[in-house]
Amino acid sequence: MSHREQTPLQLKFYQVIFGTETAAGKWFDLVLIAIIIASVAVIMLDSIVSLDDRFGDLFLRMEWGFTVLFTVEYLIRIWCTPNRRAYIFSLYGLVDLLSLLPTYLSLLVPQTAPLLIIRLLRILRIFRVLRLLSLLSEANELASALQRSGRKIFVFFSLVIIIATIFGCLLYVLEGPANGFDDIPTSVYWAIVTITTVGYGDVTPVTTAGRAVSAVGMLVGYAIIAVPTGIITAELSGAQRVRKMRDMLEARNCTNCSAVEKDVHAHYCRLCGTGLPRPGHAPEPEIPDEEGIL
Amino acid sequence: MSHREQTPLQLKFYQVIFGTETAAGKWFDLVLIAIIIASVAVIMLDSIVSLDDRFGDLFLRMEWGFTVLFTVEYLIRIWCTPNRRAYIFSLYGLVDLLSLLPTYLSLLVPQTAPLLIIRLLRILRIFRVLRLLSLLSEANELASALQRSGRKIFVFFSLVIIIATIFGCLLYVLEGPANGFDDIPTSVYWAIVTITTVGYGDVTPVTTAGRAVSAVGMLVGYAIIAVPTGIITAELSGAQRVRKMRDMLEARNCTNCSAVEKDVHAHYCRLCGTGLPRPGHAPEPEIPDEEGIL
Amino acid sequence: MSHREQTPLQLKFYQVIFGTETAAGKWFDLVLIAIIIASVAVIMLDSIVSLDDRFGDLFLRMEWGFTVLFTVEYLIRIWCTPNRRAYIFSLYGLVDLLSLLPTYLSLLVPQTAPLLIIRLLRILRIFRVLRLLSLLSEANELASALQRSGRKIFVFFSLVIIIATIFGCLLYVLEGPANGFDDIPTSVYWAIVTITTVGYGDVTPVTTAGRAVSAVGMLVGYAIIAVPTGIITAELSGAQRVRKMRDMLEARNCTNCSAVEKDVHAHYCRLCGTGLPRPGHAPEPEIPDEEGIL
Amino acid sequence: MSHREQTPLQLKFYQVIFGTETAAGKWFDLVLIAIIIASVAVIMLDSIVSLDDRFGDLFLRMEWGFTVLFTVEYLIRIWCTPNRRAYIFSLYGLVDLLSLLPTYLSLLVPQTAPLLIIRLLRILRIFRVLRLLSLLSEANELASALQRSGRKIFVFFSLVIIIATIFGCLLYVLEGPANGFDDIPTSVYWAIVTITTVGYGDVTPVTTAGRAVSAVGMLVGYAIIAVPTGIITAELSGAQRVRKMRDMLEARNCTNCSAVEKDVHAHYCRLCGTGLPRPGHAPEPEIPDEEGIL
Repeated sequence: MSHREQTPLQLKFYQVIFGTETAAGKWFDLVLIAIIIASVAVIMLDSIVSLDDRFGDLFLRMEWGFTVLFTVEYLIRIWCTPNRRAYIFSLYGLVDLLSLLPTYLSLLVPQTAPLLIIRLLRILRIFRVLRLLSLLSEANELASALQRSGRKIFVFFSLVIIIATIFGCLLYVLEGPANGFDDIPTSVYWAIVTITTVGYGDVTPVTTAGRAVSAVGMLVGYAIIAVPTGIITAELSGAQRVRKMRDMLEARNCTNCSAVEKDVHAHYCRLCGTGLPRPGHAPEPEIPDEEGIL
Repeated sequence: MSHREQTPLQLKFYQVIFGTETAAGKWFDLVLIAIIIASVAVIMLDSIVSLDDRFGDLFLRMEWGFTVLFTVEYLIRIWCTPNRRAYIFSLYGLVDLLSLLPTYLSLLVPQTAPLLIIRLLRILRIFRVLRLLSLLSEANELASALQRSGRKIFVFFSLVIIIATIFGCLLYVLEGPANGFDDIPTSVYWAIVTITTVGYGDVTPVTTAGRAVSAVGMLVGYAIIAVPTGIITAELSGAQRVRKMRDMLEARNCTNCSAVEKDVHAHYCRLCGTGLPRPGHAPEPEIPDEEGIL
Repeated sequence: MSHREQTPLQLKFYQVIFGTETAAGKWFDLVLIAIIIASVAVIMLDSIVSLDDRFGDLFLRMEWGFTVLFTVEYLIRIWCTPNRRAYIFSLYGLVDLLSLLPTYLSLLVPQTAPLLIIRLLRILRIFRVLRLLSLLSEANELASALQRSGRKIFVFFSLVIIIATIFGCLLYVLEGPANGFDDIPTSVYWAIVTITTVGYGDVTPVTTAGRAVSAVGMLVGYAIIAVPTGIITAELSGAQRVRKMRDMLEARNCTNCSAVEKDVHAHYCRLCGTGLPRPGHAPEPEIPDEEGIL
Repeated sequence: MSHREQTPLQLKFYQVIFGTETAAGKWFDLVLIAIIIASVAVIMLDSIVSLDDRFGDLFLRMEWGFTVLFTVEYLIRIWCTPNRRAYIFSLYGLVDLLSLLPTYLSLLVPQTAPLLIIRLLRILRIFRVLRLLSLLSEANELASALQRSGRKIFVFFSLVIIIATIFGCLLYVLEGPANGFDDIPTSVYWAIVTITTVGYGDVTPVTTAGRAVSAVGMLVGYAIIAVPTGIITAELSGAQRVRKMRDMLEARNCTNCSAVEKDVHAHYCRLCGTGLPRPGHAPEPEIPDEEGIL
């Protein structure tokens, strides 16, 4: 059986660490987010050579402090959760573990360049902020709009990559290695930089033909930047409309004086006392609001 | 008591300086905005070395002229407002004061480089244009749409910063200090420059792996640029719809000939003279229009 | 009297040159647009030094050909229009004249560098394409959406300029002339390049503080790019909705069988023959559709 | 007669190769898309000089493998399709053929630089991914939104090109060849790079007047980037609304208890058993849903 009985102490810790209903749970989340951001800031500052020379020891000691703190938190999370396996192998559980390992590994192996990638796994802590963000209803609304648009955005990205490949090849032919378009992957990189309107300028067309074709590519990019925006906006507008529509459908007009009644629980008109019709939606919780009505 | 009685003269000045209902009040605002823009232009031109050499004296004299004008205006504002404390400690009151101080300070201290920051406080005058802009209903509509979207935009920015941190670290590992990615803060700066599609080109990926990961980052940036647009558009569309919807709800159909009557105050059908039903919304000013109905 | 009587020949020319209803009028517009584009292309190619050396004489002869053609057209327009003064002093009439003058002026004055600006007035011909574009209903729909959004976009631009001024001054203080931020106008130019996400990279922050503040500026720019998009989208969606809504309001349900009838002129239900109610909108042409109903 | 009778074997192959209803048809599409992407990847990698030196032979052998595979597929497609002429001269049929030819041509002619363009025709294979994408309903929804917006986007592009021409000429006059604005085509290229917010930085204004005009051009570009977004969003929102609206129109309220019934086929109210009115839309399949109702 995966769900164990929790002792009262475990339940209490569980409510504070995983929950947000209690005041203690909210404070725990706020303190945790501050510590995560501080630990990420230390990793960033540590990478600056001049600061590392001066404050390297301090940074190392702080990193150990954060690591011990997060280790204790990780162990308590395992101890108090009702379903240990589910937590450990969840995305957030793996992130919690992975961002701890590098500091302990540094005890075993001297810190050398090849280990840089492993050490930077600590930066994964920033993902933990996502878990706390996801407690906000706004984040969930955005996430679900993105999710519903997922397939359309995939189609859109495929289209962008096809267009970038064609424009990249065209410019490779027109400009060639002499003008910085060394090979097709470089040219496709240039095309993506151009179509997304980033425009570094590290590779740029020099010939008149190349510039003319680039200009067409930019206008195409300019037009198709509209597509993902349209997709997301249509989703968000739709979601907003559903919420408002539901309110309106629940409103009723008095059959006698036409006054509007928005309270689902009212039985009589506030203005003339006539009995109101039954609200349209109230008795139908099974209507799938997520799909949208209007 | 914070609200004093105003003398008739104070009331008159108050209406001209703070109000916009009277013709004098409107003219005062237009003249003030012209003077503010002129004074900001002088500060800007004064910073150009070649112009400062030639016209430095003229600029100094103009600056003193503007400062005396704004000082007189500031004192009159304090004198004529019914609630002095509220004005002085309001955001605009503080801006009014702060943008005056640097010129007077220059009398006490010779103008040296360390004082540059203090002198540039004068540029805060540009914020005073905001106060005048906010008198336009369009500005308030935009401001309230931004305000309602505030939490969503905060969530969005957190997400962008998390994504920029991850891409910055990836490129720091892939490119390293040899290719301009000196440390993680620089790499995160590069990631923000890339994701927001600014793309200066002062730091650019050189290795194939770095370019491939950058291209993914650009496409991600391209897709998420859609999110704030979608948020604002949904808010603005919603607000517009509410305004239009209210008009339509107030329209009534004649029970006899179905003709549409949009005038709330009509009692009889214009076409056939039949008595009209009471308008649905008219007697309900308490419905919160700002929240939106549809 | 400003409106003269047209002779039948003048009327005929007027219909072909100014109108688009007749087949000849449409052909005239298509040929004219082709000649305008060709003449603009010749001006552009003529500015390329290597082409001017080789084909300068050809370009000059073509330019004279175009000028004679456009002069004849201009004179016919004056001759055949019923209201000469109105045409000559209209925007398009002035553009027609201004784009002819430089070629004739070159006869009087030898072509020297100071005249470059006058010669380039010929490029104004491109504006004449606008006149032909404006015959498309899509162009008018876009133009009216932009016009209705005009005040909001003005407020938005004021806001962008205020933000650019503040960020420009901040970077001027943080980076200073040593890092390319020579004076405040240059810094404000940099701020506009950054906030609009153009990002040339000719002026870029170098210090850590400058980069951090720039990153904030980019995120702000990224968020406010959403605002004009939202404004235009809300207008375009609204206009589209009005058109669709009008269709729906004109539809009626049969009182007997509930079947939908969209034809305004129907009197009886197509399915059961019951008399239909009068259409809601049909007798009210005075409803201002441009303002929008929903 | 263009439509031949298919033998059972031809029909079977046809269903697998052209169709997607059968499991075999789906697998065929997935395998084909993988092979297409692999073959495009080989062409790209082959263009990198260092890889070509080391793996040139391997790439050549793989290319021959892909070519033989695609040739067999092409011949089977011709053999099994009921209308050969229609397939061969369709866009996809031509792409299928054109992307095969270069490899065979290389047998006849030694691979030299002038043939680079012909060899790169092989990259057209990427278009074949489009055919498979178009099987997704999301792709068709996006495509039809783009198609309906086509004329508006054409008007928009004409406007952008007119604005770019004007700004290009202005900067050519203000900056001139000394500052990189060599001729008008280069200046118009710069204007398109700027207005689309790509901003390479290979050509940038240097004079104060040039920078001021550029800043205005960027703000204009920033505002009109909103237009295509608004066009696409209005189309996508409209399409989404139509789908939702149709669902709602088919819903009916019980005449007795006002309960909502969304099932078109219901005859009695689920809650009180009263007979329901006939659904509004169900008997009217001729209503053009693609045009949109609301």
